Amino acid sequence: MTRYAYAYLGPEGTFTQQALMQWSPSSGGTQVPCGSVDAALEKLRSGEVDAAVVPIENSVEGGVSATLDALASGDPLVVVGEVLVPITFVACARPGTRLQDVTAIGTHSHAWAQVRGWADQTLPRAVYVPTLSTASAAKDLAEHPDDLGYQAAVCAPVAAERFGLEVLAHDIGDMTTAVTRFVIVSRPDCQPSPSGKDKTTVVLYQRSDRAGGLLELLEQFAVRGINMTRLESRPTKDSMGSYCFSIDFEGHVQDERVGAALMSLHRVCADLRFLGSYPAASGADITVDPITTDEAFLEARRWLERLRALGSPDA
Amino acid sequence: MTRYAYAYLGPEGTFTQQALMQWSPSSGGTQVPCGSVDAALEKLRSGEVDAAVVPIENSVEGGVSATLDALASGDPLVVVGEVLVPITFVACARPGTRLQDVTAIGTHSHAWAQVRGWADQTLPRAVYVPTLSTASAAKDLAEHPDDLGYQAAVCAPVAAERFGLEVLAHDIGDMTTAVTRFVIVSRPDCQPSPSGKDKTTVVLYQRSDRAGGLLELLEQFAVRGINMTRLESRPTKDSMGSYCFSIDFEGHVQDERVGAALMSLHRVCADLRFLGSYPAASGADITVDPITTDEAFLEARRWLERLRALGSPDA
Amino acid sequence: MTRYAYAYLGPEGTFTQQALMQWSPSSGGTQVPCGSVDAALEKLRSGEVDAAVVPIENSVEGGVSATLDALASGDPLVVVGEVLVPITFVACARPGTRLQDVTAIGTHSHAWAQVRGWADQTLPRAVYVPTLSTASAAKDLAEHPDDLGYQAAVCAPVAAERFGLEVLAHDIGDMTTAVTRFVIVSRPDCQPSPSGKDKTTVVLYQRSDRAGGLLELLEQFAVRGINMTRLESRPTKDSMGSYCFSIDFEGHVQDERVGAALMSLHRVCADLRFLGSYPAASGADITVDPITTDEAFLEARRWLERLRALGSPDA
Amino acid sequence: MTRYAYAYLGPEGTFTQQALMQWSPSSGGTQVPCGSVDAALEKLRSGEVDAAVVPIENSVEGGVSATLDALASGDPLVVVGEVLVPITFVACARPGTRLQDVTAIGTHSHAWAQVRGWADQTLPRAVYVPTLSTASAAKDLAEHPDDLGYQAAVCAPVAAERFGLEVLAHDIGDMTTAVTRFVIVSRPDCQPSPSGKDKTTVVLYQRSDRAGGLLELLEQFAVRGINMTRLESRPTKDSMGSYCFSIDFEGHVQDERVGAALMSLHRVCADLRFLGSYPAASGADITVDPITTDEAFLEARRWLERLRALGSPDA
Repeated sequence: MTRYAYAYLGPEGTFTQQALMQWSPSSGGTQVPCGSVDAALEKLRSGEVDAAVVPIENSVEGGVSATLDALASGDPLVVVGEVLVPITFVACARPGTRLQDVTAIGTHSHAWAQVRGWADQTLPRAVYVPTLSTASAAKDLAEHPDDLGYQAAVCAPVAAERFGLEVLAHDIGDMTTAVTRFVIVSRPDCQPSPSGKDKTTVVLYQRSDRAGGLLELLEQFAVRGINMTRLESRPTKDSMGSYCFSIDFEGHVQDERVGAALMSLHRVCADLRFLGSYPAASGADITVDPITTDEAFLEARRWLERLRALGSPDA
Repeated sequence: MTRYAYAYLGPEGTFTQQALMQWSPSSGGTQVPCGSVDAALEKLRSGEVDAAVVPIENSVEGGVSATLDALASGDPLVVVGEVLVPITFVACARPGTRLQDVTAIGTHSHAWAQVRGWADQTLPRAVYVPTLSTASAAKDLAEHPDDLGYQAAVCAPVAAERFGLEVLAHDIGDMTTAVTRFVIVSRPDCQPSPSGKDKTTVVLYQRSDRAGGLLELLEQFAVRGINMTRLESRPTKDSMGSYCFSIDFEGHVQDERVGAALMSLHRVCADLRFLGSYPAASGADITVDPITTDEAFLEARRWLERLRALGSPDA
Repeated sequence: MTRYAYAYLGPEGTFTQQALMQWSPSSGGTQVPCGSVDAALEKLRSGEVDAAVVPIENSVEGGVSATLDALASGDPLVVVGEVLVPITFVACARPGTRLQDVTAIGTHSHAWAQVRGWADQTLPRAVYVPTLSTASAAKDLAEHPDDLGYQAAVCAPVAAERFGLEVLAHDIGDMTTAVTRFVIVSRPDCQPSPSGKDKTTVVLYQRSDRAGGLLELLEQFAVRGINMTRLESRPTKDSMGSYCFSIDFEGHVQDERVGAALMSLHRVCADLRFLGSYPAASGADITVDPITTDEAFLEARRWLERLRALGSPDA
Repeated sequence: MTRYAYAYLGPEGTFTQQALMQWSPSSGGTQVPCGSVDAALEKLRSGEVDAAVVPIENSVEGGVSATLDALASGDPLVVVGEVLVPITFVACARPGTRLQDVTAIGTHSHAWAQVRGWADQTLPRAVYVPTLSTASAAKDLAEHPDDLGYQAAVCAPVAAERFGLEVLAHDIGDMTTAVTRFVIVSRPDCQPSPSGKDKTTVVLYQRSDRAGGLLELLEQFAVRGINMTRLESRPTKDSMGSYCFSIDFEGHVQDERVGAALMSLHRVCADLRFLGSYPAASGADITVDPITTDEAFLEARRWLERLRALGSPDA
């Protein structure tokens, strides 16, 4: 009997692994670290794993392009859940290294962007050495420090611990409230039922031949009282100035108002990619206007059916 | 076997009778003149007649309040057709009367409003005597001229002819392009099938508790590419400043885009009264945007159904 | 020295005179009854009087077409005030006449429409005789009853009293809450200053060459948080299906948000007729969103001016 | 006499330097390479240089977060021009190295993302080594190849040439039509006059207390016929789900319709940061609706002023 397997953006010790452990704390599943978001999703598409965990949005840096783009193309996948992970960085080094000994710092460029303030103040003369990931900066420092050209790594606390490094400075991110949102992705034959506190993710492609554009798309949500919680514009890669929109909104594809909005968007858009309905991590209640409840939609449909039946020859 | 019977806003010789003859030129039906729009619709509701012909809109005077209000309340009735009648007035009198003999003119107040320019110029000293209708002005003049206090009647050409009066002046309306639109009304169990060139009439009542108001209602048409051809605001009689809206738009209740708009309006409005879908008198083709055709709506529904089925346990 | 003179829709004893007395209770002005709304406004345009009082809207019957149309064309006039008059009808007759003696009732057709319920129940066999006005029905009955063909008049209480008739039945209107709104009209060189509780009246003509139509016009109010209190569509008399819109909204032409909306409408409309800003009869406070106060608009203009000045060669 | 100085995102040999040379081909200015976008803009803010050239948008990767964020905070700067640079990558190595000798490739992570397809196919076993920039990958390879751990660099053609490397493969980007847009940034006291073919860039921050959100912001452009050419949502860094919007649209701050839209947005937004009006690189004509020309706006203002003056005591 096979165990449930998760691919995730590795290596071990990344914030993504932390997200996975938050999502599935029990040790019941296999964890498969991958070198890139694309690689993780590829393992999922090919059936090697049952789900993948990837970052989708950071409260400081914005949307994660690699994930947004990988979900928007290729064989369909759906988001089945989300996890919010507070992002805290540590500076760490091999035991015995002191802060004043550090002349170079290794980390991923995204992490570097978030600790620049600390670095400028604490180690103004240290140079930056880019690495493949924050975890690999720590791992390489632990395993073969001599080839690296840096004496300290910036990484997640979990990575410092795992690779036996000593923390020189805690919580060094410039934004102490930074949070990254991770999504759990699955193949589309396995989707969560409505929980009453759901979000839905879609990618909308505008028709090039329609004026109004984004305004027309957003109105489809507005006229049905649907609240949007994320909007990312992404280039469609065809030409400069051509965009698609990655959107999260409140509600589940099985909700009537969501179904109505999706049908309209399907007509209005050049393309619409559905990326799943899943319980919101916030767990907050969704306020639904009385005129956009399921019952209001169903009552309207029954009314129309009576109206149409009344005048027909068979009535 | 009973013959098909039409009630109409009488008496004989009115523009409404002219509309009825335009609608049903053959002599196959019974014509029942009524003293008011209410009376004509009452005969229809009670089953005494099969249809009623009443004026609904005049290109000079605007909507006919009595008709709009009578259709908007009481047992449901539906419009099944419409007729446009050019309005031309004549001034007529008993044979032998000359224009210069006329010191008083009898007609209905609406007709008087439309010939004031001619009267001010031709007979500046003539006084106006109100009558029940333009046709009764002519009939009374023909039948008992002595009690009336007027020597000339303003009426439809057909009335002058019918009651044996002599035309003193032709086509005396101030607006030579005046047209009145008449509707043929039926009980709701008998409605025309889509002809491809249809109009639909509804009355919309706003929810008092919603901001946005009329704008929100009109957006329901706009987002579905539905063209509005008439809009009349009417007081709801509850209080000053409370309105309902009598609206004609292009399309048939059996059209997908119309059905979708009606369902939304049913949710958004305090009340929605459907007053029928029927072939437009103009016979002009309706231009439907490719994204709002029946096929576009049906394809969107099939897409949503596949989407919902895919992730469900039964799929 | 001339006294201030008011034209009004006469004759004496009409609801319009009652409105005038409500507006200007002191006996300081001359009252000039006129035979029609057009005649009253003509006296104002020609300088014979200083103001005119005419009905503009009835809570049962809707807009008064004659007034709406007369204000919308001809030399510009402006509304400087409004009065709400509760409409109550009495049935009255010459002293000695009993209700059971009445076989015919004289009144104006609009009043007749509002007492049909009472008449059908109380005097089901009485015939209706149209008159020029409710007041003339009473006056004629008092002065030369023999030629009339009716024994009872339906009119305002003030008319029964004035012409010495006896009231047979009080408050016989079918809608006991009926109210008519009257406007006080002046030449445009004399307009009231902002009172903080004002309304503005305009007539908007759509451009025939613009899609969107009414929606586009209404958005100009919506984007500036301006509340609309009356909307009447009126045919433009050019052709069936061509409308202008008579609109009341909250605010004064001197308010920044109103000025901004009017400038936009001036661009967007084929024509815009300004019909005055004046204190609302209701006296209710107007709620202004913090982002649409005069100060918000002025601060935005100052900000733009600084922005433009900064980069200019002279800065 | 000082020469005009440009800071740019260095080192020498980057696409940004190529953009600078495209903008200012003559050798009349000093070029100052900087280690980051922040550093380049800091030199500009401090007065060390007169302008800065930085990338803002890539047709494949989307907006450049570092630039968007650096412009949106700190002392105000304005965009005064833009340059489009087609992005073509080469793989290059020290003379004598053959493609089959390459076991590791050095380049910046953004460039790596754009040549993954080529790398997977041509050198499937080569590992990726992140570098500070594409140019530094080339420079380091030329100057001290032994410490690097890679034998080939992916960079701009100009960098291969400059550092004396041999091109192993030309035009290896996965998207052959990739284009990056660079902006020329200046201090706000020096802004270009309208050219008739301008764009304007702003950053809009939503008020948290207003429903409608983005829709309300976009309507301010739509009601004035202003065409949007770029929209990027960016997290405001306060909390997950709070966004600002970086927007380019057609027109110049000195245009009436643009001024009107900016004033409205200033009222509606929590904050609005103006980032300059400048000639569009495309040079394409802007189509202005007749109702939104400068003359239409000025005529509307004159009309309002006449209207307001007419009724005032001083008129």
